[in-house]
Amino acid sequence: MSHLRLALAQLNVTVGDLEGNRLLIETAIRRAQAWWADLVVVPELAVTGYPPEDLLLKPSFIQANLNSLARLAPLTRGVTALVGFVDQDRQGRIYNAMGVLSDGRHVATYHKRFLPNYGVFDEKRYFTPGSELRLLNAGGVTVGLTICEDLWEERPCRELAAAGAQLVINASASPYHAQKLVVREQFFRERARHNRIAIAYCNLIGGQDELVFDGGSLCLNAQGREVARAAQFQEDITVLDVKLEWLGRARKTGRATAVWPRALRERPCVPLESAQRLGAEEEVYEALVLGVRDYFRKNGFSTAVMGLSGGIDSSLTACIAADALGPGHVMGVVMPSRYSSRETQEDAHATGDMLGIEVQELSIEPVFRAYLETLKPFLGDNATDVTAQNIQARIRGNVLMALSNKFGWLVLTTGNKSEFATGYCTLYGDMAGGFAVIKDVPKTLVYRLAAFRNRRGPGVPIPQSVIQRIPTAELAPNQTDQDTLPPYDVLDRILKSYVEENRSFQQILSQNHVPPETARNVIQMVDRAEYKRRQGSPGVKITPRAFGKDRRMPITNRYRQS
Amino acid sequence: MSHLRLALAQLNVTVGDLEGNRLLIETAIRRAQAWWADLVVVPELAVTGYPPEDLLLKPSFIQANLNSLARLAPLTRGVTALVGFVDQDRQGRIYNAMGVLSDGRHVATYHKRFLPNYGVFDEKRYFTPGSELRLLNAGGVTVGLTICEDLWEERPCRELAAAGAQLVINASASPYHAQKLVVREQFFRERARHNRIAIAYCNLIGGQDELVFDGGSLCLNAQGREVARAAQFQEDITVLDVKLEWLGRARKTGRATAVWPRALRERPCVPLESAQRLGAEEEVYEALVLGVRDYFRKNGFSTAVMGLSGGIDSSLTACIAADALGPGHVMGVVMPSRYSSRETQEDAHATGDMLGIEVQELSIEPVFRAYLETLKPFLGDNATDVTAQNIQARIRGNVLMALSNKFGWLVLTTGNKSEFATGYCTLYGDMAGGFAVIKDVPKTLVYRLAAFRNRRGPGVPIPQSVIQRIPTAELAPNQTDQDTLPPYDVLDRILKSYVEENRSFQQILSQNHVPPETARNVIQMVDRAEYKRRQGSPGVKITPRAFGKDRRMPITNRYRQS
Repeated sequence: MSHLRLALAQLNVTVGDLEGNRLLIETAIRRAQAWWADLVVVPELAVTGYPPEDLLLKPSFIQANLNSLARLAPLTRGVTALVGFVDQDRQGRIYNAMGVLSDGRHVATYHKRFLPNYGVFDEKRYFTPGSELRLLNAGGVTVGLTICEDLWEERPCRELAAAGAQLVINASASPYHAQKLVVREQFFRERARHNRIAIAYCNLIGGQDELVFDGGSLCLNAQGREVARAAQFQEDITVLDVKLEWLGRARKTGRATAVWPRALRERPCVPLESAQRLGAEEEVYEALVLGVRDYFRKNGFSTAVMGLSGGIDSSLTACIAADALGPGHVMGVVMPSRYSSRETQEDAHATGDMLGIEVQELSIEPVFRAYLETLKPFLGDNATDVTAQNIQARIRGNVLMALSNKFGWLVLTTGNKSEFATGYCTLYGDMAGGFAVIKDVPKTLVYRLAAFRNRRGPGVPIPQSVIQRIPTAELAPNQTDQDTLPPYDVLDRILKSYVEENRSFQQILSQNHVPPETARNVIQMVDRAEYKRRQGSPGVKITPRAFGKDRRMPITNRYRQS
Repeated sequence: MSHLRLALAQLNVTVGDLEGNRLLIETAIRRAQAWWADLVVVPELAVTGYPPEDLLLKPSFIQANLNSLARLAPLTRGVTALVGFVDQDRQGRIYNAMGVLSDGRHVATYHKRFLPNYGVFDEKRYFTPGSELRLLNAGGVTVGLTICEDLWEERPCRELAAAGAQLVINASASPYHAQKLVVREQFFRERARHNRIAIAYCNLIGGQDELVFDGGSLCLNAQGREVARAAQFQEDITVLDVKLEWLGRARKTGRATAVWPRALRERPCVPLESAQRLGAEEEVYEALVLGVRDYFRKNGFSTAVMGLSGGIDSSLTACIAADALGPGHVMGVVMPSRYSSRETQEDAHATGDMLGIEVQELSIEPVFRAYLETLKPFLGDNATDVTAQNIQARIRGNVLMALSNKFGWLVLTTGNKSEFATGYCTLYGDMAGGFAVIKDVPKTLVYRLAAFRNRRGPGVPIPQSVIQRIPTAELAPNQTDQDTLPPYDVLDRILKSYVEENRSFQQILSQNHVPPETARNVIQMVDRAEYKRRQGSPGVKITPRAFGKDRRMPITNRYRQS
């Protein structure tokens, strides 16, 4: 017998799009009503999108968000909707809040108690923390409310359980990184089991600048066992009947707001359909696809333009772009110079053909020659040094930007995290563009993703020659990446220790068994490239610590690891 | 008769330079000893530099900072030094702290209680707030300790006064913006008068990425009257004898740590020399000069290279650069195209000559022609549209970057805040460079600063023709800025309301009496240019709200003011 029907609606809202977000929430409410659900949950701050950043400092924005919430309440006939919004008190303080809209009225509000202010989060910049528990009584089931971080902290669940909650609802906007879902679920399972409460977790999905939210909403019973799971990286509404035996026994209850349903009701069961977890590479690949798709869609772009070099980075980026936007919306440009080999150009065309994207070719030689001639009084005759190499990269950047300016296409850059970390890239050259698809993907993972994409299909877009070729920027004769960088497997291990884990020089050595000289060089390259990264374009975060607002290092910084 | 001699040492420390900062603090201690001072104060976090940002997440950095402090204690024979550092407790929590180093030992520590987490500040990302008052007894005078924000909040002074403090010491790292000093001093005066306590304020000086700290350390008596003032934008040590009559009567004292001096001592008086406050334009100009000088010095650069167009922005930037680095360390490059007039080129050379900087000329025509030829299949024959305009700007950016790469010069960009706000600038073009000197200076203030620099000398570097010419980018025939933008006085008023004050559309209209269409256009331009600004170079903050970490707006943002 079913007592309480729950709908977890993981929506893809857009920051600032109050009208659009309201329509998405409306649709979720209507779908919940159509399913005869009692409670429908949408993600954290669904009204405003997440994170709204300094929009929260605009009084007009806060007011518009309150107006938007007010328009939702009348729609909740016969259902209770838990809707994330920004609440404001009489002193003008604002709260990351959940409105309880029940049977036509806004009957209660919960204020998030624990505000994350680390990593990519700045919630203490804006919000006042809440101080009170909020319990609902829905047809005899006692429901406790939490928002995102509240569930990662130990206190709220413990206090809600002590106050009589049988089911804790969590509305989240939890940014993705690889394998976070596993950690999160283990964590929540422990939380459920320890407090003997069921947990219903509703997460945001979608891309927002550098962040991707992965969905994967989840319901666990009071034994910590999974009872329902939503898809990752897709909008999804998960409807499920809460069974009394999941909840453990009823407990003494503190003050709870009575919400719809006022009494138990009978209705046909819904079949439980649980989504499958994605595999390790598939998960990252889908995060990148969604990040690109949403950056384009939410910023009003439809077509990407990008350089195709025949290297693995641009090949993978092209795959992601084609999968995100459709092959008809990706324009590849092959831009050979005197240093480009026939093989790489052929591979570039092959990848383009395989993906079904349009490929144009355009030699940078005439412009390169004009630069060398113009700059001769300063540079002499050298066409191979770093200065000349950067000129080539910048010509390519400028060509792509000219096409962008002319046709309204958005330029995708193709640099990976290993390059971005060490500064092995040219500012205003290969770094020029609107979105840096794989900027947080280490080179070793680039290879794994390429293999995954070839394996999964459609087609086998990345030729074996691309995968097997020794990495080269082709900006000087017989150049390889390893002239400048350590082998990528060594480099990526050092970068993980240094950038993601903040390890000291000594720890890096003992963790990775690498030569001290290599580690020292890498650290120095990372430190020195901060000014470059600061001018890089945004791109999808997929590791626990991306560059950008996740890692806020000063440019002017004389600290040297020892 | 003098009872307590105080030295306020406003130092120019560097983030991460633990060794260098320690030597600066050592020197301040030795100078204080030479002056027979009893108490010497250095700025907030002087050991690490401010703000250290995510260096604070590195355990090795925290440890190195503790080691540095430990090496200072033994130097404090016959003096008490109040030294800003990062403290750590046994749970690994860190505090923005002030160490009391007295007569050879570290005798007490104060933890900052109020942590700013707004504007450019992220202190709650790192620090745990302190919870205790800290009082010192120095030869019978009761001294209360505070750090920066503590003095801006009402509670600490009130509680210190109630606990018996006669003199409150404040160690700060307070970022500059125009006219902040006036606000600050009015504020502190009120604080002193209201609590009947004297205040000794020691502020950081120097540039750190986008921030400049202005010094202007200050001592106020218990009536709120100024008794000593340090210079702005310079290292300075202010030594003064605290007179009992400044402090009001002694009060009942809470628990106070006894520090050197153990008894009152007699010594010759020091003459009080108070610095003058700078005028409105001079203050901003000096902030920009110091910001440039320190960015170069602290990042290991000595020479700047920049484009000279004969316009007011590049002319003013050249003046600032020459004043900051010396004219022998500035290289101006005139880069005419088919659209450049003879007059602007002459003016560019005239400014360069007047400043005594080296000027090179280099036509961008051959490269421009090569681009037009290469891109003809895509762009057709148009050499005047926005695409072609951007190509020209990017060629200039690339030429400067080539010189930078070849000779190790740092490229200065010359765009002002009005352009940066509206996106009236070319990404990878005139935006290409390491430091954007006047990026936070509105165009109307650019004119005032130019007039100031001509008035003050040396020389009259900016020709009247530059000041009087109708602003033009010279990227197309007969182009003026006002083809695209409203008149700068109107634009700057709208930008102040919208960007600095977060006003709504309606408020902007009523505040500024501008046509709705103009205001709407400006707002739209500002919103749409977020992606460009994100890739801009750092530059000195001189307004209450600069772009960058002071104003954290999402790129993906569908909110539209109405």
